[in-house]
Amino acid sequence: MSYPFLKGHGTENDFVLLPDHDGSVHGDLPIERVRALCDRRAGIGADGVLRVVRTAQVVEPAQVVEPVETPGAEWFMDYRNADGSIAEMCGNGVRVFGRHLALEGLVDPSVPVPIATRDGIKVLTFADGSAEGEITVDMGMPKVLEETEVGVTVDGSARRWTARHVDMGNPHAVAFLDDGQDLADVGPLTSRPSYDAGVYPDGVNVEFVVRPGDAHLAMRVHERGSGETRSCGTGACAVAVAGALRDVPEGGARDVPYRVDLPGGTLTITWTADDRILMAGPAVLVASGDTDL
Amino acid sequence: MSYPFLKGHGTENDFVLLPDHDGSVHGDLPIERVRALCDRRAGIGADGVLRVVRTAQVVEPAQVVEPVETPGAEWFMDYRNADGSIAEMCGNGVRVFGRHLALEGLVDPSVPVPIATRDGIKVLTFADGSAEGEITVDMGMPKVLEETEVGVTVDGSARRWTARHVDMGNPHAVAFLDDGQDLADVGPLTSRPSYDAGVYPDGVNVEFVVRPGDAHLAMRVHERGSGETRSCGTGACAVAVAGALRDVPEGGARDVPYRVDLPGGTLTITWTADDRILMAGPAVLVASGDTDL
Repeated sequence: MSYPFLKGHGTENDFVLLPDHDGSVHGDLPIERVRALCDRRAGIGADGVLRVVRTAQVVEPAQVVEPVETPGAEWFMDYRNADGSIAEMCGNGVRVFGRHLALEGLVDPSVPVPIATRDGIKVLTFADGSAEGEITVDMGMPKVLEETEVGVTVDGSARRWTARHVDMGNPHAVAFLDDGQDLADVGPLTSRPSYDAGVYPDGVNVEFVVRPGDAHLAMRVHERGSGETRSCGTGACAVAVAGALRDVPEGGARDVPYRVDLPGGTLTITWTADDRILMAGPAVLVASGDTDL
Repeated sequence: MSYPFLKGHGTENDFVLLPDHDGSVHGDLPIERVRALCDRRAGIGADGVLRVVRTAQVVEPAQVVEPVETPGAEWFMDYRNADGSIAEMCGNGVRVFGRHLALEGLVDPSVPVPIATRDGIKVLTFADGSAEGEITVDMGMPKVLEETEVGVTVDGSARRWTARHVDMGNPHAVAFLDDGQDLADVGPLTSRPSYDAGVYPDGVNVEFVVRPGDAHLAMRVHERGSGETRSCGTGACAVAVAGALRDVPEGGARDVPYRVDLPGGTLTITWTADDRILMAGPAVLVASGDTDL
């Protein structure tokens, strides 16, 4: 069976998109097909799959406990990790998803576009109301929690930093490096950083951050389960929140766009006065075609 | 500019194919485009690019010194490494190249198919004369050279093995592990194995080999410039030659198909009585479409 696909990325977090508007192409999308598509040598290769399906057609697999909130969102982002597991939401993925919908004329980019995800409805806005404009996604409210410690061992020498615990739906430990340190000093990050398992019983994504300038941060991230990656959307949000709290300890700098540089590109993140996180960044489609994987 | 592409692989050595029959689509194929296509996150992702062009249309870039031998070969495999550099020949790539030509009806699989490469003409044969049959490629004559030593350091402990120097157009050092050792004992191969730089002034591909059974070998390979890879066609040929010489020290076992297992799949390699190496193995196309990279 041959079926259509697209490939795209946001800050080098990459995805295979599967148009399946009425749900008739992929059914509940077998794990084996997701793995085959994401295999970087035997398949097309990606960090995950985004199935593009009308919300009204969604028949959720049994393993999803929470029902999807659907009102107002015509399209559902059925997101799977490369290993085939179900995923709730991905800030880089939802921009690529929205770009595809707008370029195909399936949504109107001149007004806010609600997208249904397993983490609820996410709203996209397109710069200049254009299908090709930069896409901003409302990532919801952050939870700012206590400070803990994280550590890495470089060349046999253990280093530790204070880290801010920020929850963006998933847990992050944001560690600002000391003055004079740069991101390379963290070492190769080939093994998991140490953290307080009492604070993070399900593991944690660890961000290492420097501050090249005012409202300008640069980061590396070690994602739980994945190791160091070139981009992590929720990680960049957590970093911006922690940076805003360093700049304005009482409540954080609000309505200030923070530039966050990741290895795979740059995101712009704003913590609004009404406690939402807005993330803007690139979303690029690079290829489309057919596959029988 | 949007142009067509295909993606395929042989034993997980993967390629982007660019149909460009009259040479009008890509000209001399800019390095930047090759890199963009092969980028595994921002592009499509591959180990290299195979431009599909009629031999009569080939205008070789100035950096290629040797002229391509063209008589009889309608199609030229313009092969580039992922970094954009010119490459001569690839045994996994030429099978995928031939599969594409046969499936498109551009060559006749019922007879031997000559393909022009920068390493001269390579002849493909299709099992059962079918476009979907297993493809065998004549990889030319091996040069069997002296024995040297190679080594790796595992957990701080240095290990050394005797290695057979086999040249398949590129240099290989084939090390059979000792009885009772298995391929995992070689360790992670994250750094380059040690070798005699006097014997291999341009570096060497190093193969580690075990012998699961009669005419059956299993290997791992560290490719110079790439590190450990999931497949290396010429490496598998060198391993089969070294194995044939272990089985029949005087001249090597001839006309015996050797099964060679690599991490990415299995190849069947035969050293013929007239001193040619025939390599047979999978060649799969997984996707096709358009890109504007």
